[in-house]
Amino acid sequence: MYSEKVMDHFMNPRNVGTIEDANGVGEEGNPSCGDIMKMYLKIENDIIVDAKFQTFGCGAAIASSSMATEMIKGKTLEEAWQLSNKAVAEALDGLPAIKMHCSVLAEETIHKAINDYLVKQ
Amino acid sequence: MYSEKVMDHFMNPRNVGTIEDANGVGEEGNPSCGDIMKMYLKIENDIIVDAKFQTFGCGAAIASSSMATEMIKGKTLEEAWQLSNKAVAEALDGLPAIKMHCSVLAEETIHKAINDYLVKQ
Ligand code: FES
Repeated sequence: MYSEKVMDHFMNPRNVGTIEDANGVGEEGNPSCGDIMKMYLKIENDIIVDAKFQTFGCGAAIASSSMATEMIKGKTLEEAWQLSNKAVAEALDGLPAIKMHCSVLAEETIHKAINDYLVKQ
Repeated sequence: MYSEKVMDHFMNPRNVGTIEDANGVGEEGNPSCGDIMKMYLKIENDIIVDAKFQTFGCGAAIASSSMATEMIKGKTLEEAWQLSNKAVAEALDGLPAIKMHCSVLAEETIHKAINDYLVKQ
C-alpha cells in the first residue's frame, strides 16, 4: 500500500520537533480527520535555514511533513510557498488517494508558517 | 483537544513492535481513513501473556492501541474480547468524537488476533 520512501520517512521522520528561535510558526487542522500539524521555520534573508514539525496525524502526514521540510530547507520563501502537496507525494513515490489529504495538511501548515513570518516583518 | 493520558500514550506508546512467537496475529484496516493496524498476541492457557502492535495510524490510534494492549495483558481471551473501544477511550480520559473510529480499529484488531489464535487451535 505504501512506497518504500513513505515507510522510510514514517519510520525515521526527518525534522521532528520544535525550533526555539523560530520566526515563522504555523498550526493547521485537518477537518476531514481532526488531525493537527505544527510547523516551525527559521528564516534568514528570505531563505528557510531550518524547518521542523510536530503532528498528531497519521503515517502519511508524518511522511509528507518529513519530506516537505526536507524539500523547503535552503529554499527561498517563494520557492517554499510553491511546493505543492502533489510534488511532496511524488517525491515520496506516491500516496494512496485516501491519504492525499494528509499531504495537503503539510502544504497548508507551511503556508501558515510563512504567513506568520511575513506578518511579523 | 487531547487529554494528558492520550498525549502520554501517544508520545510514549507502550507495546509497540512485533512478537516473534506470537500465536495470535490480526490485521485490520480502517475504511474511513485508510489506516492499518497489526496486533500480535502471545497466549498461554487462554491468558494473554504479551501483546504488541504496529500501526500507520494517527496519534489517537497509537494512544488507543497502547492503552488497549496494556488493558488486555494478563486477561483471559474472553475478558479481552469484551474490551470495548469505549472502555479504552474512557481509560484515556476521553477522545474527540472525530477520533472514536481510531479506537474502534484497536478493538477490531484485537478481535482478529484472538480469532486467529482460536482458528489455529
Ligand atoms: S488521517 Fe489525519 S493526517 Fe492522515
